[in-house]
Amino acid sequence: MKIKVVSKILEANDRIASENRKKFDEADVFVMNLMSAPGAGKTSLIEHTIKTLRNNLKIGVIEGDIAGTDDAQRIEALGIPVIQINTGSACHLDANMINEVIDDLPIKNLDLLIVENVGNLVCPAEFKIGEDMKCMILSIAEGDDKPLKYPLMFQESSALVLNKIDLMPYIDTDIEKIKRDSLSLNPSLKIFGVSCKTGEGLDRWTAWLETLVHK
Amino acid sequence: MKIKVVSKILEANDRIASENRKKFDEADVFVMNLMSAPGAGKTSLIEHTIKTLRNNLKIGVIEGDIAGTDDAQRIEALGIPVIQINTGSACHLDANMINEVIDDLPIKNLDLLIVENVGNLVCPAEFKIGEDMKCMILSIAEGDDKPLKYPLMFQESSALVLNKIDLMPYIDTDIEKIKRDSLSLNPSLKIFGVSCKTGEGLDRWTAWLETLVHK
Repeated sequence: MKIKVVSKILEANDRIASENRKKFDEADVFVMNLMSAPGAGKTSLIEHTIKTLRNNLKIGVIEGDIAGTDDAQRIEALGIPVIQINTGSACHLDANMINEVIDDLPIKNLDLLIVENVGNLVCPAEFKIGEDMKCMILSIAEGDDKPLKYPLMFQESSALVLNKIDLMPYIDTDIEKIKRDSLSLNPSLKIFGVSCKTGEGLDRWTAWLETLVHK
Repeated sequence: MKIKVVSKILEANDRIASENRKKFDEADVFVMNLMSAPGAGKTSLIEHTIKTLRNNLKIGVIEGDIAGTDDAQRIEALGIPVIQINTGSACHLDANMINEVIDDLPIKNLDLLIVENVGNLVCPAEFKIGEDMKCMILSIAEGDDKPLKYPLMFQESSALVLNKIDLMPYIDTDIEKIKRDSLSLNPSLKIFGVSCKTGEGLDRWTAWLETLVHK
């Protein structure tokens, strides 16, 4: 019975995701759904991405959090249009939540809309929101066993950003194991090693993203 | 309508949690529900707790993961009775999942049953499983904004274990802010700073836990 409930929710979600998709296509905006566990660095990556690409692309952001507006304030400080969704108790964004805020963003004037999902390695990967692609961040401080324990997010993502590589000398995480296991789940996954603290590796990430948006 | 579905599930869950509670009371076993985001160090903390307390307490473990048996293998290597629950796509353990495995553990011979929940800072806090107490781990590498963004878990937990304090010199996390915000959400929260890598601070944690089990 519980499974029936979930599939009903997912069916309704997919229908609304298609509506969102149509609106995004009409506005000619590229939508990235950015996912990770709590504290992996989603907002920091978005800040860096905005700073690097803002001269070339018009960018907007939707922030998803259980509670609070910290992340939206960080984005707003950069002068970028941003909407905060507080999900209350829901551990992911769904298509309907996005649907309800689309008209509050100037999507026709945007090239790239970044949606920062709720910090969670599980459910966000199950709910389409009408995005062009999903990407995920993994902090290397989370350890090297995550791909095999949370396979769906690695399978659903187009890119895996390995953040906090500045911590490499101080932790035991086997980066090669992460890459190997991720690619076994998703052979076409693009993998980027970055540090949002030092800036290392971010150029490759932003260059790749810009190419996709311009396609 | 979605809210109605959730409340029905939670009501059914609470009923089964009460059944579990009764079984645990009859067996006189203390049950700790251990929660955290992915990669915060739940299994490492359990390993340390077992090594320190195994001469004084009979301990058993239930491992919850979306997929894989890595964690259960780590516990089994210590010669401790352990059961792995693979939730498939569910991002938390619920009372029914625990109910189905209780009889496979020698709970009448146990003093302490540790349940390692799925790595997720959101949903595990919503589902009672019949435990005596919930505890949570936060890796300080996750940053200092977690209490205000994921308040329920901090409110539901009896103890907050701040892990990976060995990384303190290399990150910008404001530990005092974490403590302040956590205590504002839950003034009776016990807070422990530990490093499962160096062993620092773990004695205080295990001493506290042992006192509770013996009560």
